[in-house]
Amino acid sequence: MVRELAERCKEASRQLRVASVIQRNNVLERYARLLEQNTERILEENEKDLIAARADGMSEALLDRLTLNGKRIGGIAGSVRKVLSYADPVGGADGAVRHPNGMLISKRQVPLGVVGVIYEARPNVTADVVSLCIKSGNAALLRGGRAALLSNTALVALAHEALQDAGLPAGCIGLISDHDRSSAVEMMGLTGLLDALIPRGGKGLIKSVVENAKVPVIETGWGNCHVYVDEEADLAMAVSVTVNAKCSRPSVCNAAETLLVARPVAGDFLPKAAEALAKQSVRLHCCPESLAILQKAGADPALLCPAEELDWETEYNDFDLAVCVTDGLNQAAEHINRYGSGHSDAIITKNYFTARRFTELVDSAAVYVNVSTRFTDGEEFGLGAEIGVSTQKLHVRGPMGLDALTTAQFVIEGEGQVRE
Amino acid sequence: MVRELAERCKEASRQLRVASVIQRNNVLERYARLLEQNTERILEENEKDLIAARADGMSEALLDRLTLNGKRIGGIAGSVRKVLSYADPVGGADGAVRHPNGMLISKRQVPLGVVGVIYEARPNVTADVVSLCIKSGNAALLRGGRAALLSNTALVALAHEALQDAGLPAGCIGLISDHDRSSAVEMMGLTGLLDALIPRGGKGLIKSVVENAKVPVIETGWGNCHVYVDEEADLAMAVSVTVNAKCSRPSVCNAAETLLVARPVAGDFLPKAAEALAKQSVRLHCCPESLAILQKAGADPALLCPAEELDWETEYNDFDLAVCVTDGLNQAAEHINRYGSGHSDAIITKNYFTARRFTELVDSAAVYVNVSTRFTDGEEFGLGAEIGVSTQKLHVRGPMGLDALTTAQFVIEGEGQVRE
Repeated sequence: MVRELAERCKEASRQLRVASVIQRNNVLERYARLLEQNTERILEENEKDLIAARADGMSEALLDRLTLNGKRIGGIAGSVRKVLSYADPVGGADGAVRHPNGMLISKRQVPLGVVGVIYEARPNVTADVVSLCIKSGNAALLRGGRAALLSNTALVALAHEALQDAGLPAGCIGLISDHDRSSAVEMMGLTGLLDALIPRGGKGLIKSVVENAKVPVIETGWGNCHVYVDEEADLAMAVSVTVNAKCSRPSVCNAAETLLVARPVAGDFLPKAAEALAKQSVRLHCCPESLAILQKAGADPALLCPAEELDWETEYNDFDLAVCVTDGLNQAAEHINRYGSGHSDAIITKNYFTARRFTELVDSAAVYVNVSTRFTDGEEFGLGAEIGVSTQKLHVRGPMGLDALTTAQFVIEGEGQVRE
Repeated sequence: MVRELAERCKEASRQLRVASVIQRNNVLERYARLLEQNTERILEENEKDLIAARADGMSEALLDRLTLNGKRIGGIAGSVRKVLSYADPVGGADGAVRHPNGMLISKRQVPLGVVGVIYEARPNVTADVVSLCIKSGNAALLRGGRAALLSNTALVALAHEALQDAGLPAGCIGLISDHDRSSAVEMMGLTGLLDALIPRGGKGLIKSVVENAKVPVIETGWGNCHVYVDEEADLAMAVSVTVNAKCSRPSVCNAAETLLVARPVAGDFLPKAAEALAKQSVRLHCCPESLAILQKAGADPALLCPAEELDWETEYNDFDLAVCVTDGLNQAAEHINRYGSGHSDAIITKNYFTARRFTELVDSAAVYVNVSTRFTDGEEFGLGAEIGVSTQKLHVRGPMGLDALTTAQFVIEGEGQVRE
């Protein structure tokens, strides 16, 4: 069943591959309109999902992510139109060279082919992936969370209608309705059918896909980000950046999870930081040295606890922050490279040489100097629509724009050239 | 043992990452000289490998690949100096944007970190990988074929000497001396230590690594390439390109393995092609239609046999060619996309529209119009040193230059910017 869907995607991708950007944009325009026109129908299906999820005891936070309403569907249609507005990521040539024998070698961007996405029970991701894939000329095989199946089925049915209205096969978008664990495993083994598999979700899901997939994977999503306050930091700036990096949206992957402080300023900086963080009830998981400083400074004991080894590698995604005093730059960089996720890490320093050195030592997708880690994001970086943030090094690193869904193809044109 | 070596590579890669290109070039210059100065010592170790391999009954072809001599070592040293001469692939920035809030976002190329390579008993690959990795700032963990262990040990010892002479740790290059199957499996599981794993060798090795590795893989190497002779082809050109694509070097991955012919010209073209190919004793594995045409035309029966399904997906790497008559362009493209390896495929046609359509329909790394497939090669494409030819779509596709051993890193500089 999964394989059949994938084969249909592969077949359809051949047509999508040669569809003009006008045709692909027509699909998106039609899709946005269909979403708006069929809001009631989508909400009815979503309501059934919600009733079942509540009966299964789903948490409020997860129920919220599963919930659609008129405003949210309007937002989804708006996102589809936004993707429509971006430049065509495929077809353009990235330079050409003429070989001494006269043949012309050009390198152009083409769609990947079929992109698989495994994600959780968030129906908005369905429309997101549909629009990003169609825009970039890719077919998509989707496996959303089981709890969102009826919502997703409705959203995909409209995508099929939009595709067919634009003269493209419905098979461009496949939705897996079987939610056995085996269907995910089957997806991971679709060698030759899936050109890329993108897991979107928690660390467990991502790890499982990365370790078990036989098809190529684009790893996205989790982030254990650091702010390092150097001995020559502007301490007011350090407090402001720390609070922003931790508190402005703790649930996202570019939020800070560990605060590193150079020993010479720890006694001065940590009480100030703790005071500001206490306003948002941030719980600090402290190394012995920082714990002693904060206890001595009279920080709220309810917000302090000793850090364990595990804290250094934890993505809290909450109002929790690990705190560690370090000797200085080198030790901080070592800590980040050892425990971090290679996502986003910042230094606060006034020293030019230290700043430069930090960006060279830290092996992460985004390295910040005197800026909050919270900016790692496709829109903020000027890449347009964001598919996710890659924490792997191959193919794409950091925020992924539509380009990440393309690959290169060499085209060589000549008049009978042969190789000696 | 494998893990310890990988950890040493990781540790050393931190230093290599910040080494200047002058320092990295010094390693290569020193390495080339050491190879020349220690030719005798290398040959002694190679001789021991050869004696053992002969005793084990290694075939002449494989013995030839294992064999070093003074001239070959001179060639290896020359290759090292050639890599030295290329532009530095790391450190440069690929554009920068200023965010409305004033921070500067730049994207620069950095080394991957630690690159693992699994390859067969060809000592020249050892020096190749050493020079490509050091030039691009990467540490390398090598697992060469068991039969070349003594040769490789000698070559790596000289690399260690060159690194240390240039002030870099010997740990930058690790050589696995244990050739149990388990050491390859262990390499494939070095998550967090190996940033990329490149298998160089036969289809079996590559397939096993692609399917079993938990670390990111760059798939290289095998090629089932096609020449499609369109009904509007210049038939003399078609014969010349076919002979070149098949015969100029049948053992390499960009050699043609299947000849597709449009039905309207099959009767005219195939006997001409068979005559030219017979001069090099090329054995033709024919579909029923082409077999009938060639038998009727009086082609040498010793060079003809019926094709089986398996022939369409076989990389002969020899003077063998599968032959299939097709309805025309669309069926040819379908055949290529279905059975091909996505490496290099050519059309011979005089028709402008057919040529354009072929390049759009065929989903391969390199698509040729009226040119032999044999040109798919880093040097020929102007990419400089070639690490291999990628047949995957993620990260890098087609011939890989030094750039394929780098990844991007965003650097964001500001004065305390925080996100609203």
